[in-house]
Amino acid sequence: MPVPRLVTLLSDFGLSDVYVGVMKGVIAQINPTLTVIDLSHEIPPQNIAAGQFCLMSAYPYFPDGTVHIAVVDPGVGGNRRAVAIEFANAFLVCPDNGLFSGILSHTPVVAAIALTNREYWRTPTPSKTFHGRDIFASVGAHLASGVPFTELGQKIAPETLVPLPISEYSLTDTGILGCIQYVDRFGNLITNIPAHLVDGKNWFVKAAGLSIPGNKTYSNTPDGSAIALLGSHGCVEIAVSKGNAQSQLQIKLGDAVQIVLH
Amino acid sequence: MPVPRLVTLLSDFGLSDVYVGVMKGVIAQINPTLTVIDLSHEIPPQNIAAGQFCLMSAYPYFPDGTVHIAVVDPGVGGNRRAVAIEFANAFLVCPDNGLFSGILSHTPVVAAIALTNREYWRTPTPSKTFHGRDIFASVGAHLASGVPFTELGQKIAPETLVPLPISEYSLTDTGILGCIQYVDRFGNLITNIPAHLVDGKNWFVKAAGLSIPGNKTYSNTPDGSAIALLGSHGCVEIAVSKGNAQSQLQIKLGDAVQIVLH
Amino acid sequence: MPVPRLVTLLSDFGLSDVYVGVMKGVIAQINPTLTVIDLSHEIPPQNIAAGQFCLMSAYPYFPDGTVHIAVVDPGVGGNRRAVAIEFANAFLVCPDNGLFSGILSHTPVVAAIALTNREYWRTPTPSKTFHGRDIFASVGAHLASGVPFTELGQKIAPETLVPLPISEYSLTDTGILGCIQYVDRFGNLITNIPAHLVDGKNWFVKAAGLSIPGNKTYSNTPDGSAIALLGSHGCVEIAVSKGNAQSQLQIKLGDAVQIVLH
Repeated sequence: MPVPRLVTLLSDFGLSDVYVGVMKGVIAQINPTLTVIDLSHEIPPQNIAAGQFCLMSAYPYFPDGTVHIAVVDPGVGGNRRAVAIEFANAFLVCPDNGLFSGILSHTPVVAAIALTNREYWRTPTPSKTFHGRDIFASVGAHLASGVPFTELGQKIAPETLVPLPISEYSLTDTGILGCIQYVDRFGNLITNIPAHLVDGKNWFVKAAGLSIPGNKTYSNTPDGSAIALLGSHGCVEIAVSKGNAQSQLQIKLGDAVQIVLH
Repeated sequence: MPVPRLVTLLSDFGLSDVYVGVMKGVIAQINPTLTVIDLSHEIPPQNIAAGQFCLMSAYPYFPDGTVHIAVVDPGVGGNRRAVAIEFANAFLVCPDNGLFSGILSHTPVVAAIALTNREYWRTPTPSKTFHGRDIFASVGAHLASGVPFTELGQKIAPETLVPLPISEYSLTDTGILGCIQYVDRFGNLITNIPAHLVDGKNWFVKAAGLSIPGNKTYSNTPDGSAIALLGSHGCVEIAVSKGNAQSQLQIKLGDAVQIVLH
Repeated sequence: MPVPRLVTLLSDFGLSDVYVGVMKGVIAQINPTLTVIDLSHEIPPQNIAAGQFCLMSAYPYFPDGTVHIAVVDPGVGGNRRAVAIEFANAFLVCPDNGLFSGILSHTPVVAAIALTNREYWRTPTPSKTFHGRDIFASVGAHLASGVPFTELGQKIAPETLVPLPISEYSLTDTGILGCIQYVDRFGNLITNIPAHLVDGKNWFVKAAGLSIPGNKTYSNTPDGSAIALLGSHGCVEIAVSKGNAQSQLQIKLGDAVQIVLH
């Protein structure tokens, strides 16, 4: 495997404070030659569900062996474990709180480690509030620099990782029942229904009392019209052409949606 | 020409979702040694006029041969072409919707290509909604890595590129008539009137019923006063010292401004 | 000392315009191999106090010899000096307006230079409004690329640097009197009282008529409760578990806080 590996960062730290910059400084202190890419730092505060969705969305588009460092960590300073997880094509370094659940829904865990080896922490006495700096960035930088995965701590059984309950879609007599699992900055409503289930079929979406035609693209839709399409995340999405679906359709995160095949 | 070239990204994707991170992942999958610089990802959604202004503003400050990837793309999934444009000092990879117009107002097109060679796309069957990931990032990374410009697709006549109508200033008996072409985060009002037309002369600005003195700097102006100055973009700007000109003067994007030479 | 050095950027330019991207372009024109890390560009406009706090917070976490370029510059275009300051572990390139004050409270100035050598500016005739581009980014890139510190201009006495008045804490009969010196994106209220003064003791905080228990972590506190803890910045912080202390406690920047030791 090529060394050094690429590093990505995902967090709910925002960009107005220096928390993200400090994590990059810690990484550079360990290995200034590492390349670090931001996935997003605007995950809503402490929203693990949004974090795991974003990791799942980004995972397929990075080089093999990438080290993803993810810090959405409401349990910081408590008993939750710090872990590193090996998947087929990447590593994930994060608190054991379900941030891995989205990736897991697409690819199995190869191995998992509890980050108990303090040699790879920034300090053996970490802050009670900022493990992103004192544990996750430091361990991730060492892993990306060639420290063997198994050196980072004690091996743990993948089944003991704490999952996040993820809403599953279900098949019905007339189609598919699901929900909105993510809303992006454009107000696009991303469902948990895989696009391949409707691709090439005739279908529409029922949500919030509306019937929304499927199989559309922005370019063949009048401005301001609601449409359903096969989104870039690989899921069915509801959008408004040149508009904001969340505010205009009054549909929000978690709301039920029904796909009718006809 | 040195290889690899620098890559920049400009989009309206924002930083709260992983769209920008995913584009960087695609670039790293093609060539992990490329350096990628963000110009801005906070272009107002689908606002091509703001996008082309920002590209024009940034163009002179990058090394020769830089590959600018720009994605403000309301026509994604439709008939608009995907193009690469060669200028004297840089390449621009973007939808054919006028994003090149600002740069073009300063330097001519050397050559243009329609991105029809799917070998350099991320996938021959791109998403209908995210060509930034599946076409533009991928083609830009290949171009920055040394793929010849002419390999990217079919040569097209520069005259066939779809321009954005750009408001022109005009000379009058008493001065210059123009408009506000951009408002920055400080509320500074940037006109479309080149600074060199007034440099070294006595002048003031008339706008929204106000007379605003010219030839000022922030440091010689009382706090809260409106001033007109030769801005860093190379255009006449209207500002309020330690304040926000847009909100305090009630002048907005597109409003007419008149420069009086005296 | 290793060359090239790491470069960081801090400013109040925001990320919606291309000002930050342009500074990175200027740096790449001088040396495309430099690594540039953003500390923050969301410093509130012209807020030197927030800027110097963020620089102080980030300083310990970067490699020796890092060149920090900081531009919060209400006096741009006026008489304030442009300076470079050498500290034990880093350089700071910035306007002479107190941005160095936070770092100075932890480590002394080794040497200081007024940036009078125009050879290292981007242009001998800089813009009156954007010295970040025309002076600071350019000088910082040259310094990081190996230009000797003393070549950048005229040596100046560290005592002549213009400090920012920093609120000091004071010891009282019953504890410590201080104030809120920074509020982060989570609404956490960071005081100017060093954590080591209370570490291992019994204490609570009095602020805005409230008594807030100390020595807590998020994980052992009920959701919605106010707590005081030893924050990651090395200062006492007031927080609300899974909440926003600034809005829920109605405590703001500059407010007095009292620590009672018991």
